[in-house]
Amino acid sequence: MDMMRRGSLFVLSSPSGAGKTTLARRLIEEDANISMSVSVTTREARPGEIDGEDYTFVDQARFDELVSQDALIEWAQVFGNCYGTPKATVFEKLTSGRDVLFDIDWQGAQQLRQHAGQDVISIFVLPPSRDELENRLMSRGQDDSEVVAKRMAAASNEISHWAEYDYVIVNRDVDESAAQLKSIVEASRLHRERQLGLAEFVREMVD
Amino acid sequence: MDMMRRGSLFVLSSPSGAGKTTLARRLIEEDANISMSVSVTTREARPGEIDGEDYTFVDQARFDELVSQDALIEWAQVFGNCYGTPKATVFEKLTSGRDVLFDIDWQGAQQLRQHAGQDVISIFVLPPSRDELENRLMSRGQDDSEVVAKRMAAASNEISHWAEYDYVIVNRDVDESAAQLKSIVEASRLHRERQLGLAEFVREMVD
Repeated sequence: MDMMRRGSLFVLSSPSGAGKTTLARRLIEEDANISMSVSVTTREARPGEIDGEDYTFVDQARFDELVSQDALIEWAQVFGNCYGTPKATVFEKLTSGRDVLFDIDWQGAQQLRQHAGQDVISIFVLPPSRDELENRLMSRGQDDSEVVAKRMAAASNEISHWAEYDYVIVNRDVDESAAQLKSIVEASRLHRERQLGLAEFVREMVD
Repeated sequence: MDMMRRGSLFVLSSPSGAGKTTLARRLIEEDANISMSVSVTTREARPGEIDGEDYTFVDQARFDELVSQDALIEWAQVFGNCYGTPKATVFEKLTSGRDVLFDIDWQGAQQLRQHAGQDVISIFVLPPSRDELENRLMSRGQDDSEVVAKRMAAASNEISHWAEYDYVIVNRDVDESAAQLKSIVEASRLHRERQLGLAEFVREMVD
């Protein structure tokens, strides 16, 4: 007998530069039962981004409409752009036993917990040290110190919410961290509440 | 920086014949940071059992003394023999960041949760089917049907408590189940509350 399962919503948050995107990509590649949540956003598509895959790109009017229809499970404004997660697709996946991975910040995580608390497993990824974080924030391009300082402030703000998360991964080594993330996902699937039909399975066994 | 950790108490329960002992042994062999809890018992040592390793063998008077001194974190009487877990060694391991694995029944699990709830992660191992369970209960020797029926009744009783456990593993394949148990243990170590010193670590990063 194959046990039916209720999916989970895995939230991965971190300051930028902590390696979250790499970890998310690796998990998605290695695990066929989890997929990224595709956000809708009002920001411009960057070169190489695919509409409907990286994001669903919409204008502000359409985004406002989704908000007023209560069609988003969470949304936030970041650097003047709006980002949100459509409810329908998420709950459809959950009930069919598939997991969804969210790459969202602490604001999104808070909203997700509010609207789907029982299904949310949240993971915060920390950089291994301040030096390492600064290095990663700088090495992204030829940025002046003011830009880096601004990013560092944003990172500090994000990091200040670490204690709201279920799990914390200190990303010292990407292979180790990827394995840790995988453990969290696999363990969560063994949680009693996630395995639907256990009661019936047991009843048949001991009857 | 190496994060200090608070250990966990992993409880593995199952009806006999579900493969729990094999799973426990494999986890202990593969993971240097977890060790079996050594119970004290009033039952006779079986051939090959080592005092202080498999069990600490004591007489009834000594056992009663431990109970009256409140020196046992849990204890139970099973088939006329007493079994219990000494408090001191368990809490010593926890505070030094080491995990302890308990091979105890639902009664022991309940007591452990009562006395150390925050530190307990409990896992119930189910056989894959009733037929498989009966086969395993029979293949242990040349038992008559009455003995097997008695064992089946005991198994049913134990199984009836599955819903008190955090995790459930249906033991279809021992390799798969061993990997699942490992995931549960590894994920638990990443739990925010288990990683001591995170607050300080973060403070140093964002200061």
